[in-house]
Amino acid sequence: MTGKLYAISTGPGASDLITVRASRVLATLDVVYAPAGRKGGDSLALSIVREYLGEHTQVCCRHFPMSADSAEKEEVWDAVAAELQSDVESGKRVGFITLGDAMLFSTWVFLLKRLQNPDWLEIIPGVTSFSAIASRSATPLAMETQSLAVISCTAPEAEIRRALEQHDSLVLMKVYGRFARIKCLLQEANLLDCALMMAEATLPGEQCWRELSAINDENPLPYFSTILINKQWGRERK
Amino acid sequence: MTGKLYAISTGPGASDLITVRASRVLATLDVVYAPAGRKGGDSLALSIVREYLGEHTQVCCRHFPMSADSAEKEEVWDAVAAELQSDVESGKRVGFITLGDAMLFSTWVFLLKRLQNPDWLEIIPGVTSFSAIASRSATPLAMETQSLAVISCTAPEAEIRRALEQHDSLVLMKVYGRFARIKCLLQEANLLDCALMMAEATLPGEQCWRELSAINDENPLPYFSTILINKQWGRERK
Repeated sequence: MTGKLYAISTGPGASDLITVRASRVLATLDVVYAPAGRKGGDSLALSIVREYLGEHTQVCCRHFPMSADSAEKEEVWDAVAAELQSDVESGKRVGFITLGDAMLFSTWVFLLKRLQNPDWLEIIPGVTSFSAIASRSATPLAMETQSLAVISCTAPEAEIRRALEQHDSLVLMKVYGRFARIKCLLQEANLLDCALMMAEATLPGEQCWRELSAINDENPLPYFSTILINKQWGRERK
Repeated sequence: MTGKLYAISTGPGASDLITVRASRVLATLDVVYAPAGRKGGDSLALSIVREYLGEHTQVCCRHFPMSADSAEKEEVWDAVAAELQSDVESGKRVGFITLGDAMLFSTWVFLLKRLQNPDWLEIIPGVTSFSAIASRSATPLAMETQSLAVISCTAPEAEIRRALEQHDSLVLMKVYGRFARIKCLLQEANLLDCALMMAEATLPGEQCWRELSAINDENPLPYFSTILINKQWGRERK
């Protein structure tokens, strides 16, 4: 077996925020698999890497359903993992691209579970969306003895509430569709004044809100919206 | 004023894990400032970026003391921030390099505090050490509704204990000099079997320990040692 599989983190959005290693590997691929979610997630990962692809790299989009039906999802994961493995076995250099960092809230991990970390796999880490947001907003993630919690807004409310209380800094991911509820939790925890929200950080459509209380809950947010809270820094800045 | 300051994240260690943007900016700098810590921290940041520097880029190492004397530290931060600002004011393209991601446990933030996020500053995010460790060890940081806590081992013990209990995944940074105590906390929390430790991830001297109980507490660890715990994944893998 001479093929190889690369799980390639594309970083937060801007094409030049992928790693040098990712850019070099992309140029050598026979085939690249791109996950196609709803809301244009597919074209985003692919649009980030397109300029680095080799002239002859074949592009395969695969749709991963967001449905609650886990049997349907497992079937897709099984099928895509089998495709990746089969391409490697036929000697190809194969890429699977994934937004942000491959090991954080990524569909890639469900494929990794099936492939079981074989010798022919290399995972290339990437810049997370929250590092990009911290840089763009000049807000530190953590300093000295502080702690950072990275939370999914799909987590149980009690867990989010507890984390808001206990950590110095927090990243709230997957805000989309849950903003009104999260805003209430932030208000309860007296954190509205030190929170900021960014959408599409590092992309041309980047937006940053520093006054969360002023956002109308009724308006739909962009899909990639993330909240960053640094209690001490946020309070000193206001 | 036509100068510009770039805070440049160098990523975890391998030169090709810096971003494409960082590599391009480095080539255009008039001067680059490198933080020089003890234990070879200085040469590491500089050695990561050296291949990308322009032919005429001047290199300035600045020592940031680790001392507990905060007056001494503040004096250095004031002085280096003033140097950076003065170079920008004289029209230079200035870089300040920082290991991992600039906004996470980085000396850079103390300079940012003094510079106050001016228009002539751009912060370039980078791959964190823990993303690199997750990729190298094929261990996810978080999936679905899980939460990740990033903790400094210099934090109060009660906080570390609480985080170990409450989060699905944890990154314990700054293990150096505190391993014996952390190992006890992991044992208490019944997490020794799902923890792994890495040092110098992505560098030639990379080491990975998957059996923390087998490590002799008496032997000194490499300076850049980090523990990664994924409770569910770690247990399924053993």
